[in-house]
Amino acid sequence: MKKKKNKIMPFTFKIDFTNRTLSNPDSHIIRKLSSMKGQYLDQSIYNGMLKKEDTVLYEVYEKLAPEIEGELIQGLSIVHPGKVGREYFMTKGHFHSVLETAELYFCLKGQGYMIMETPEGDWSAEELVPYTALYVPGRWAHRSINVGSEDLLMLFVYPAHAGHNYVTIETKGFRKLIVEENSNPKLIDNPRWKGKNEFKTSQ
Amino acid sequence: MKKKKNKIMPFTFKIDFTNRTLSNPDSHIIRKLSSMKGQYLDQSIYNGMLKKEDTVLYEVYEKLAPEIEGELIQGLSIVHPGKVGREYFMTKGHFHSVLETAELYFCLKGQGYMIMETPEGDWSAEELVPYTALYVPGRWAHRSINVGSEDLLMLFVYPAHAGHNYVTIETKGFRKLIVEENSNPKLIDNPRWKGKNEFKTSQ
Repeated sequence: MKKKKNKIMPFTFKIDFTNRTLSNPDSHIIRKLSSMKGQYLDQSIYNGMLKKEDTVLYEVYEKLAPEIEGELIQGLSIVHPGKVGREYFMTKGHFHSVLETAELYFCLKGQGYMIMETPEGDWSAEELVPYTALYVPGRWAHRSINVGSEDLLMLFVYPAHAGHNYVTIETKGFRKLIVEENSNPKLIDNPRWKGKNEFKTSQ
Repeated sequence: MKKKKNKIMPFTFKIDFTNRTLSNPDSHIIRKLSSMKGQYLDQSIYNGMLKKEDTVLYEVYEKLAPEIEGELIQGLSIVHPGKVGREYFMTKGHFHSVLETAELYFCLKGQGYMIMETPEGDWSAEELVPYTALYVPGRWAHRSINVGSEDLLMLFVYPAHAGHNYVTIETKGFRKLIVEENSNPKLIDNPRWKGKNEFKTSQ
């Protein structure tokens, strides 16, 4: 990010569909199977896969801005295709540290779902197909799931001061899961959901 | 926007490239030639065109959210192709009422430029082509200009509490213009810019 007289300067970035990246990213996060401990329903399949290879599940490229109210952080999220038992490759999922901050996703390629829930127990699942935008309001934890056979590419934008709270989902999981049934994605209750734990506000 | 227990619910919307709209918009703004009084360089051509027809220059479809910090407003902006003398069809352009709020644009179709400036006199011009995102930081007024022969389609996202301040640009104009020269867009100083007026903060 260029600055001039302490001012943030406008900038552009281009989505590179061939190399599955964006131009000049400020950060590149790579999440592997090992970062999903305790999340997948079939823990024996999960552990077996992890012994063989710590597969890359998803990647995130970001273009940053100062982490202050009014600015925005944006980037490209790429969830690779694959499964752990009947469940699909997916992101860790998170609340925002500043809970009352939203996020906009815009699907560019692939087929997926976003699983969402609030601390109060509301939940929602929305389908993601190319040129569909999804608005995740403040208070909603969100996890993207690739239910297709190619990469799921999404542009995302969120308030720059939002921050990420991963620990609540790492501890409790999501209330709902998406599993494959007769070659189709199906929404089910998460039998391993640890709902009795209180809502964690630390990161 | 659905609400449940006073909570904002997630929602999706789809970009409809055929009909140049998005699904179930909350608002549809249509801006015609008559809304650009005093902005175009060649006022005699402008007035002549306006006498014949009050042409639609651009349209904006929005999906709304509560206008509070943390939420986001998003939509689709469509600038039609055309010219007023050597200048292209363009938007009115605006600062945000809450000056320190950014906006992200993502070009989906067409060819354009964004002209930007701050109250302190910095300026910037960035090219817009499909799959290019443009980050407009807080403090930067912005106007999109269609320099191509087809509609310029852009997805946009901004903090829901930003608001719009049109009056400063209506009064002063932008410091820079884009005009056609030898069939190409060219950036020039705006000879009609009224820089001696103070920055207007009312809407």
